[in-house]
Amino acid sequence: MHTPARLRPKRLHGNAAGVAPGTLQPHAEAKETRVTLLRYDGEGVTEAVEPELVKVREGLGHGVIWLDVQGMADTRRIQELAGLFGLHPLAVEDAVTSHQRAKAEAYPEHLFVVVRQPDGDDPANTEQVSLFLGAHYVITFQEHAGDCLDPVRERIRGAAGRIRKRGPDYLAYAILDAVVDSYFPWVETNDAHLAEIEDEVLAGTANHGVIDTLARLRRRFARLRRLLAGLNDCLEDLREAEASLVGAETKVYLRDALDHLRRMIDQVEHDRETAAGLLDYHISRVNHEMNDVMKVLTVMSTVFIPLSFLAGLWGMNFASMPELQTPWGYPVALTLMAGVAAWLLRWFRRRRWI
Amino acid sequence: MHTPARLRPKRLHGNAAGVAPGTLQPHAEAKETRVTLLRYDGEGVTEAVEPELVKVREGLGHGVIWLDVQGMADTRRIQELAGLFGLHPLAVEDAVTSHQRAKAEAYPEHLFVVVRQPDGDDPANTEQVSLFLGAHYVITFQEHAGDCLDPVRERIRGAAGRIRKRGPDYLAYAILDAVVDSYFPWVETNDAHLAEIEDEVLAGTANHGVIDTLARLRRRFARLRRLLAGLNDCLEDLREAEASLVGAETKVYLRDALDHLRRMIDQVEHDRETAAGLLDYHISRVNHEMNDVMKVLTVMSTVFIPLSFLAGLWGMNFASMPELQTPWGYPVALTLMAGVAAWLLRWFRRRRWI
Amino acid sequence: MHTPARLRPKRLHGNAAGVAPGTLQPHAEAKETRVTLLRYDGEGVTEAVEPELVKVREGLGHGVIWLDVQGMADTRRIQELAGLFGLHPLAVEDAVTSHQRAKAEAYPEHLFVVVRQPDGDDPANTEQVSLFLGAHYVITFQEHAGDCLDPVRERIRGAAGRIRKRGPDYLAYAILDAVVDSYFPWVETNDAHLAEIEDEVLAGTANHGVIDTLARLRRRFARLRRLLAGLNDCLEDLREAEASLVGAETKVYLRDALDHLRRMIDQVEHDRETAAGLLDYHISRVNHEMNDVMKVLTVMSTVFIPLSFLAGLWGMNFASMPELQTPWGYPVALTLMAGVAAWLLRWFRRRRWI
Amino acid sequence: MHTPARLRPKRLHGNAAGVAPGTLQPHAEAKETRVTLLRYDGEGVTEAVEPELVKVREGLGHGVIWLDVQGMADTRRIQELAGLFGLHPLAVEDAVTSHQRAKAEAYPEHLFVVVRQPDGDDPANTEQVSLFLGAHYVITFQEHAGDCLDPVRERIRGAAGRIRKRGPDYLAYAILDAVVDSYFPWVETNDAHLAEIEDEVLAGTANHGVIDTLARLRRRFARLRRLLAGLNDCLEDLREAEASLVGAETKVYLRDALDHLRRMIDQVEHDRETAAGLLDYHISRVNHEMNDVMKVLTVMSTVFIPLSFLAGLWGMNFASMPELQTPWGYPVALTLMAGVAAWLLRWFRRRRWI
Amino acid sequence: MHTPARLRPKRLHGNAAGVAPGTLQPHAEAKETRVTLLRYDGEGVTEAVEPELVKVREGLGHGVIWLDVQGMADTRRIQELAGLFGLHPLAVEDAVTSHQRAKAEAYPEHLFVVVRQPDGDDPANTEQVSLFLGAHYVITFQEHAGDCLDPVRERIRGAAGRIRKRGPDYLAYAILDAVVDSYFPWVETNDAHLAEIEDEVLAGTANHGVIDTLARLRRRFARLRRLLAGLNDCLEDLREAEASLVGAETKVYLRDALDHLRRMIDQVEHDRETAAGLLDYHISRVNHEMNDVMKVLTVMSTVFIPLSFLAGLWGMNFASMPELQTPWGYPVALTLMAGVAAWLLRWFRRRRWI
Repeated sequence: MHTPARLRPKRLHGNAAGVAPGTLQPHAEAKETRVTLLRYDGEGVTEAVEPELVKVREGLGHGVIWLDVQGMADTRRIQELAGLFGLHPLAVEDAVTSHQRAKAEAYPEHLFVVVRQPDGDDPANTEQVSLFLGAHYVITFQEHAGDCLDPVRERIRGAAGRIRKRGPDYLAYAILDAVVDSYFPWVETNDAHLAEIEDEVLAGTANHGVIDTLARLRRRFARLRRLLAGLNDCLEDLREAEASLVGAETKVYLRDALDHLRRMIDQVEHDRETAAGLLDYHISRVNHEMNDVMKVLTVMSTVFIPLSFLAGLWGMNFASMPELQTPWGYPVALTLMAGVAAWLLRWFRRRRWI
Repeated sequence: MHTPARLRPKRLHGNAAGVAPGTLQPHAEAKETRVTLLRYDGEGVTEAVEPELVKVREGLGHGVIWLDVQGMADTRRIQELAGLFGLHPLAVEDAVTSHQRAKAEAYPEHLFVVVRQPDGDDPANTEQVSLFLGAHYVITFQEHAGDCLDPVRERIRGAAGRIRKRGPDYLAYAILDAVVDSYFPWVETNDAHLAEIEDEVLAGTANHGVIDTLARLRRRFARLRRLLAGLNDCLEDLREAEASLVGAETKVYLRDALDHLRRMIDQVEHDRETAAGLLDYHISRVNHEMNDVMKVLTVMSTVFIPLSFLAGLWGMNFASMPELQTPWGYPVALTLMAGVAAWLLRWFRRRRWI
Repeated sequence: MHTPARLRPKRLHGNAAGVAPGTLQPHAEAKETRVTLLRYDGEGVTEAVEPELVKVREGLGHGVIWLDVQGMADTRRIQELAGLFGLHPLAVEDAVTSHQRAKAEAYPEHLFVVVRQPDGDDPANTEQVSLFLGAHYVITFQEHAGDCLDPVRERIRGAAGRIRKRGPDYLAYAILDAVVDSYFPWVETNDAHLAEIEDEVLAGTANHGVIDTLARLRRRFARLRRLLAGLNDCLEDLREAEASLVGAETKVYLRDALDHLRRMIDQVEHDRETAAGLLDYHISRVNHEMNDVMKVLTVMSTVFIPLSFLAGLWGMNFASMPELQTPWGYPVALTLMAGVAAWLLRWFRRRRWI
Repeated sequence: MHTPARLRPKRLHGNAAGVAPGTLQPHAEAKETRVTLLRYDGEGVTEAVEPELVKVREGLGHGVIWLDVQGMADTRRIQELAGLFGLHPLAVEDAVTSHQRAKAEAYPEHLFVVVRQPDGDDPANTEQVSLFLGAHYVITFQEHAGDCLDPVRERIRGAAGRIRKRGPDYLAYAILDAVVDSYFPWVETNDAHLAEIEDEVLAGTANHGVIDTLARLRRRFARLRRLLAGLNDCLEDLREAEASLVGAETKVYLRDALDHLRRMIDQVEHDRETAAGLLDYHISRVNHEMNDVMKVLTVMSTVFIPLSFLAGLWGMNFASMPELQTPWGYPVALTLMAGVAAWLLRWFRRRRWI
Repeated sequence: MHTPARLRPKRLHGNAAGVAPGTLQPHAEAKETRVTLLRYDGEGVTEAVEPELVKVREGLGHGVIWLDVQGMADTRRIQELAGLFGLHPLAVEDAVTSHQRAKAEAYPEHLFVVVRQPDGDDPANTEQVSLFLGAHYVITFQEHAGDCLDPVRERIRGAAGRIRKRGPDYLAYAILDAVVDSYFPWVETNDAHLAEIEDEVLAGTANHGVIDTLARLRRRFARLRRLLAGLNDCLEDLREAEASLVGAETKVYLRDALDHLRRMIDQVEHDRETAAGLLDYHISRVNHEMNDVMKVLTVMSTVFIPLSFLAGLWGMNFASMPELQTPWGYPVALTLMAGVAAWLLRWFRRRRWI
């Protein structure tokens, strides 16, 4: 079971079909690997950078062990770690490969969780955080160094940290909660952006570009929603994990994290609908303006077209046009024209077009 | 379990990710805290403002205790209360934080319910009511003082109040039912507003602003629907709560409250569809009017365009245009023009454009 | 359990929130109450108007008792009846209040069913029929006197009525089946109306008002569908009721009634889609006609605009326009104009616009 | 149970509500009834037309009996048959009434299946086939004589027919499979029709009528899909029937028939989407052409409108218009006009309108 | 059970309804049949082309046997194979018939799986791969020779192949995983094509044909999604197969393959939405441009129409038009025209049309 079978990076941009599984091949853009250890119990905290993994393995069972692996370049060391802690090869392959979907999977000897945390402003960019939860340890894998897990570390180091009195399942919760919380600024940034646009659109000062902006925002909220929904499914699966790995009390905390998440999802859903509504509103406004433009054209044309014809008629050069010679010809013609115009305008007004 | 861990306000506008949980931080806009006690049984009612909480705790088991906390400013006192009654810290944090979603959560020693009641006319504004239901007590938390729970208090005080003969689960039901009922005026106000607009639209007297109004109403009904659906889910969860906290008879009453709620949801759903239908109708009407406008323009233009050309033709100043010199030139030209116009009009009529 | 608690009419247009439940308040528009009794068994039928309720209660167990209450004005008598037969107060309140949704609810001592039957032509108007099914009785509540239950009464009175050999569950089925059947004429009237409109639309003789008509019909079918779906859910719930109240054989009959209902729902669904399809068809037809109108305008305008310009050009009064003086000026000008027109028309034809 | 209660024809165009159930009333258009018998076992086949039903009943248990009833006019004989074989009255009523939905219902002593087979080209026309499956018999009811069941009869008669070695459940499967197969030509005819239209639309040679045709085809596919989905549900129900009536091996065959059906449903679903896609494509094409038409009009008008104005200006008859008298007036005017036209055309080109 | 009953090819373009099942009829376009054998265990691999099937049957139980049948022309040999290995006739019929949907079916003695692999660029073209998984063997059927299963063969032959140490269930997984992987290039090709078009559309350099291209891509993604969803359902069914045929460890690998598949489905879903979004964007852009075109026409027309009328007015040939004779007539007329134009332009500017 622990043979490192089938470890080729299964990215969507994957290898040729059916290639024999071999050793863990590093991704070309993988960052340098850095392993840090944090071991704690009710009494104290020990930290180490690049610890000797065999010794860590031997010390299992004394306190909670948190191994954090940042950067995926050194596949040899990752494989050593996986072998020592009995991590399932398929899970290790997923941890090393970015572009995984959020998920929680039960393996015989550990839980495996993949989540994604925001990276920059656009929901298209996320960084993967993988987490192995065993009986005595938590092992995390991250693509880059330095990130949203620092506050968790601070809470463990802090004297007042209640986290030290709990097991690895609570540590896993704390890490996942930190990931969930890291979406808050993202949701708010986009929400604030939408609010600005809403003001513009409702005030009628938006230019045509607003259609693109709103469509882009709507797509962004849709993507964000999908990300959060994936995270939600993943936490739900964890709440249904076996009691031996995730205790009842920790599950209460997970429910709380889920509640946060659902509030964010509600917000994002609401924003997405708002964006769609604003788009409809703007388009209806533009169409209405266009209708007004067309009506003016119609009224103008329709009034002047017969008048111009009459002017053209009396501008003809026929030798014998008796009405042209009479002194009252011109005033009568002008009166006739005015009459036609007045009749047409009244007709428009009766049909409520002007 | 009862350590007040992780009590930072988890609003959507939350703290930085991963901050260590500490003491209950009051929201900047929190109102001053006021605690009132109501203790009753079949025989009588005792009331107290700002009661000594330790004594209240000691008296648990004698009659039903209702502690109502209004305003969230005094976090120290709230924490004392939570400690004495064994309220779960995560639930207390949610109770103190506004902007929660409606939900019912089972904790080992109590049920925790959050609902939202209308605040003003717009479904965007709601006030949060939280409720802890224990074996012998109900503890409610509200953001502002004075509200829809007064009638419940009156019913307890009233001699005829059957409510006094029942347990805390019935009290919790009575409170939730009052919250559900507080939505009725809201639903009716918006329904009446829609009915007015419907009359205008169907009579054809609506101006363009009606599109905005209908779109806004539709969004409002959608928001209202979501609020009521949240309340519905929450009451459903309560009906499935363990029998030890919510008795079978009270569940019958909850089913009744749910039935009310579903009727409101039906009404709101119907209103939302009506708003959408009216919007479509109005737009189709406007489009149809536009089509008429365009047809008139087309007919006018198409009839006069060739006539004007002819007039222009005979208005040219070529020296040798023999037809201009003949005495019958002008009458023949006029007849020709009338003929063209008549032919075109007949053609339009045959195609049923006019 | 039998205390008449909480009996205020809970209409959607309800009382102020949280009002103490008291006595059964009659609706302002409630009709006068009239109670009729029908008691039957295999041997015979007894009927009575305004029977002495206490005696009816004592006779329970001898044959099937059907108490029919028409009109809700006399709340005192209704309360007496409810007390004698142990009807649950919440159910009685729902029975007395109109505007309930169709539903089937199990109470400890009886089933409670609310259904709606058509009242007039428009699915917006329905009358409520409530039904209590106990071990030995059926009690029905109706808003108005005289209605679709008469045929059921006739079948009981008739010598050949097999209904007399069965229990109250079969009576309840017979009543509900009569309600279901009362929708048939409604469905058919609207279906026939749609068929007429379909003929008009497909023949192209429909005027603009057809858009409103179709939209109204579609809404009506949607409302009808919702009504029938509510009835369907209600009968489904009955089929899952405990065997002690509804026997296996009666459930076979209920399945048959459900089958009828589903056929009606299919029909209504089909009609709704037909209405939507006709709407789309009509709008596409109107748009196509508009396109034709626009094309004619364009071709006319585009052909004559340059010709008119040329005519205007040679109508200018410049002293020195040599071409005007030559004798071949006019014929050449006419030829040129004809050439331009021919070239444009050929271009249009090549692009297949005419 | 076997009393022929409630046998009025429950068509959608049904009797008045609540009419007492009586004898089986024949439909006005019902065909003459013809009963044929086929009895077979591993050894041989016996056939009879209009057999003596009482004898058939007595011979139950010796081989498989297939009674086929074609035409519903002779309700007396049908009732005799129903009585002898203990067919449930409600099921017999459904079998005699056309316009039933496909369904499979379990009765205490037999299964009852209704399916519909195509009748002509339009999915609006189907014929009903009803089937009773008992322990030793299959009884089928059909509206017309002669149909898709003949091949099944041939297979039974054929010496090589493995069908003879199996029980009545396999016969029922064979009949239903024949019904399923009878949809194949239908699906293919419509598919081929769609393919023709697709070619026309994509080649751009389709005229306006194609919108109607596609809309009609789409509705037809929708109807076909609903028919097949009903058949699918019905076969699914059969697969979950009790093992005593439908054996495990026959269920494997039913799964196979379901697989056929789902492939047809996939095909129909695909065709429906294709029709919708073609409709959108055609409309987008027509709109695009209209846009081109409008652009040409706009460019023409916009270029010539100022030129015509200038021509009109210099065609005015004011006595003192000095520019008219100079010899260079005309050439300058022409140059000016050419300049205006060139500038406008360049502006259009810059905006990429031409 | 093993009688080869009912083996006619059940293609959608199937035989006439109800034809008696007989021998396996080869499809007209079926390729020549070629059977290859691969037998392996932990120690070694034996391969054979066109092995003697009886001997293979006798050797069952010694190592894992993989029989690969390519080309379906020789139905006699296929029937012999089916008979020897006890393959169910219905499954064999499906294996031989192309155009099956992806599915996994449990038969008493083996699992039967049908999947489809890409064939060329267009998701409309796929090749069928069928797989029988028994206790000791895997039998695959393919329409053409040479394909995506070669890598699996290589892995078995390779010395390092861990696959040799596992049972037939892992072999089946490896084959299905190869099929899943064979979709990757397809997904990527279409994704890349979409990315190109996205660039064009967003840069505004797309011509009208892009609407067709996007609609075609969207349909293609929809088809691809349906294919992958079918594959997904099929693998899900396999994961729920009985433990005796598919072991727990192999199910972990299947979960991994499902994870790949879901990532592809996510990608395809995302692409489909992108295509739809681009289509909307392009159409909105085209509409906006059209609006601009119309506005220019309107402004031009509306400004010049009254001016042209005035010019025509003073171009009339009435004998007595006093203003024409005064020397200031012309300048005043020009000023008046300029004034009208200026006033109209200001009015347009005030309404923000220009």
